[in-house]
Amino acid sequence: MTDLRINVDANRVYRELDELATFNDAEIPAVTRVLYTPVDLKARAFLKRLCADAGLTVREDPIGNLFARWAGSEPNLPAVGTGSHTDALPFAGRYDGTVGVLGGLAAIRALQTARFRPRRSIELLMFTSEEPTRFGLGCVGSRGLCGALPPDKLANLRDKEDQRLDDLRLAAGFRGDLVGVRLPANYYSAFVELHIEQGPVLERENLPIGIVTAIAAPAALRMTIEGEGGHAGAVLMPQRRDALCAAAEIILAVEAAAKATGSSDTVATTGICRVHPGAVNSVPSQVYLEIDVRDVRLEPRDQVVKAIRNAADDVSQRRGVKIAIEMFNADPPATMAASVVSAAEAACKQLGLTYKRMVSRAYHDTLFMARLCETGMIFIPCRAGVSHRPDEYAAPEAIGRGVEVLALTLARLSAD
Amino acid sequence: MTDLRINVDANRVYRELDELATFNDAEIPAVTRVLYTPVDLKARAFLKRLCADAGLTVREDPIGNLFARWAGSEPNLPAVGTGSHTDALPFAGRYDGTVGVLGGLAAIRALQTARFRPRRSIELLMFTSEEPTRFGLGCVGSRGLCGALPPDKLANLRDKEDQRLDDLRLAAGFRGDLVGVRLPANYYSAFVELHIEQGPVLERENLPIGIVTAIAAPAALRMTIEGEGGHAGAVLMPQRRDALCAAAEIILAVEAAAKATGSSDTVATTGICRVHPGAVNSVPSQVYLEIDVRDVRLEPRDQVVKAIRNAADDVSQRRGVKIAIEMFNADPPATMAASVVSAAEAACKQLGLTYKRMVSRAYHDTLFMARLCETGMIFIPCRAGVSHRPDEYAAPEAIGRGVEVLALTLARLSAD
Repeated sequence: MTDLRINVDANRVYRELDELATFNDAEIPAVTRVLYTPVDLKARAFLKRLCADAGLTVREDPIGNLFARWAGSEPNLPAVGTGSHTDALPFAGRYDGTVGVLGGLAAIRALQTARFRPRRSIELLMFTSEEPTRFGLGCVGSRGLCGALPPDKLANLRDKEDQRLDDLRLAAGFRGDLVGVRLPANYYSAFVELHIEQGPVLERENLPIGIVTAIAAPAALRMTIEGEGGHAGAVLMPQRRDALCAAAEIILAVEAAAKATGSSDTVATTGICRVHPGAVNSVPSQVYLEIDVRDVRLEPRDQVVKAIRNAADDVSQRRGVKIAIEMFNADPPATMAASVVSAAEAACKQLGLTYKRMVSRAYHDTLFMARLCETGMIFIPCRAGVSHRPDEYAAPEAIGRGVEVLALTLARLSAD
Repeated sequence: MTDLRINVDANRVYRELDELATFNDAEIPAVTRVLYTPVDLKARAFLKRLCADAGLTVREDPIGNLFARWAGSEPNLPAVGTGSHTDALPFAGRYDGTVGVLGGLAAIRALQTARFRPRRSIELLMFTSEEPTRFGLGCVGSRGLCGALPPDKLANLRDKEDQRLDDLRLAAGFRGDLVGVRLPANYYSAFVELHIEQGPVLERENLPIGIVTAIAAPAALRMTIEGEGGHAGAVLMPQRRDALCAAAEIILAVEAAAKATGSSDTVATTGICRVHPGAVNSVPSQVYLEIDVRDVRLEPRDQVVKAIRNAADDVSQRRGVKIAIEMFNADPPATMAASVVSAAEAACKQLGLTYKRMVSRAYHDTLFMARLCETGMIFIPCRAGVSHRPDEYAAPEAIGRGVEVLALTLARLSAD
């Protein structure tokens, strides 16, 4: 293993990332790619072509998780997986997720070129819909794979137009019983995901690689505030129960609660705020908020959730508005496997690359793959830590180094 | 004139209001009717049929203002106008505007039944788009009629999809040069609009009629707040320049400024708040607000506008966000003509109805008709003062009394 020398064509990966970015409902540099839309299906077709060119066997499951397998010399052993997602939030960038998919493929190609022969099969995975854009819930694909979303719940996920996932996936051409989505327990022995850091640490410390030891615990709240509408000219101020003014207080309480935990890792964000009826001369009667709270530890996270609930109670009483709160996601954090972390560290050492162990504050499919097998993540720096924005950027050299580390990590895990 | 006895079929007006409400893009009781949409065109066709049944001569101008004329014995004299609008804000009610259109028609029918012969022609007017839904600007039709919006500005009004009014009106079937929209100075001698109060005063004081002496001065601001986006999990709190948190402070400052003028007539509302990119796991990078400020006097109104600008400056500096403010509307208030006010008062006295003189805090096309001729407005009570909501309600008897007062007012003005 230690004599394996691999050669990654970083420019080729880069060109493929550029081409993938053209399947897009926004204008480049912004990328919008939502599950089951025409651009999503085109991006999948592009990826399948690249996988076929590399001699991989491609299949898609009933909801569109895509698997591309390079058979090992002992094909009946649990495989080693790698991959990420290609869907993109509205007006996001071109590296989030895609680096792990096209970089995963590049790692397999580099191992093929180096005439490496895997013992366990190595499989590239593109998860259906890591981003919560369509169904308000992230990691739909990996939740399905690990059984966190059983078939009936998967089928009945609904988008903003109240369309069911089951109808949408059939219309998009994905067939088969949803019972077939969940992977058997012994399908993978290990899974490792390459990803941009989406934070500023690696760039600031001038490190090419981060090796993830844990993924933070996200909680997400939906809040509906019901006040009283009316004509903006005619309803006098003392008579008002303005839902947007109530929402404004809650938005500021969310921010204050995250700052007050004493943990510098706590973040809380109101990312969605929709106003009804939404006319300049109507007092807002209803506001819908979605709030995301994270910390690498459960305690400060739950402290913020509690503070938000208290603020909502206070606003509700003081302003005479009704507030309904639903906690629609509160996943526990995941710890990465020592075996995968060691394999990635050994790969870095072999390549002479410095690295640091770190925590992922962002959400990843690996959070759910950790329920199926041993997992790990490899981070590369991205410019200024920026992600989910059109100016998200990772340099070709950074991607190339990440692919090298990934290739050697996969080699080690597949030989195990 | 004083021996004229009129008989209004309030139930017929009520049935017509119900039928008009079926031309609607929401679900009854909510009404959504936006300029040049299929339901708007169907509502117009319904109105034209009713006008033709009453023997009126119907014409539409190049942007869709609809005129239905009952010729007087001296048809070359300036006419007396009455009317209002049939467009409805998203998820609004069925009485705002429509009572003045179908009630205006009912007043004409009542005068016909009473065998009244007008000296001046009496003309029913349905204004194109009083509500700001489509173009972000209210009273597009009446602004065109009085020249406040000249042809080039009319043509280039743009909706949210960036479509020009000129293209939209042609596609909807309205032909002719936009130069033809402005009415000649001597077209009307007087104009009077029947409307629900959209406030609680008449109901609270148990009065059937309000006679308007002035219309409040509305000002409207557009504000774009540019912060910095990023991944909601990865950007730590001290690094954030969250556009929605900045907006929340401004929304609360708008409310506080309106409460602080010392005038109980001051109102200020943030009715529109749109967040970009609008995803639960993205820090908001941009927020767009529309703010409406009104008072019956200019001074407190301008004091609020100034306070909002100061708050925006403060938030901008403190949070490191860029804020662009555009004052897209700041019309002066209008005073109603003594002649029209007296005619309406005489009508009330003849009918034995109590009334009060009052100010309109809501916006009306009469604000712009006041630039063309002598104007007045007749208010009727609506339940709990509620408007711009699905539960907006005016009782048949209240509408019937308003139509009676309008009919006698038109009779007096047309005899003048």
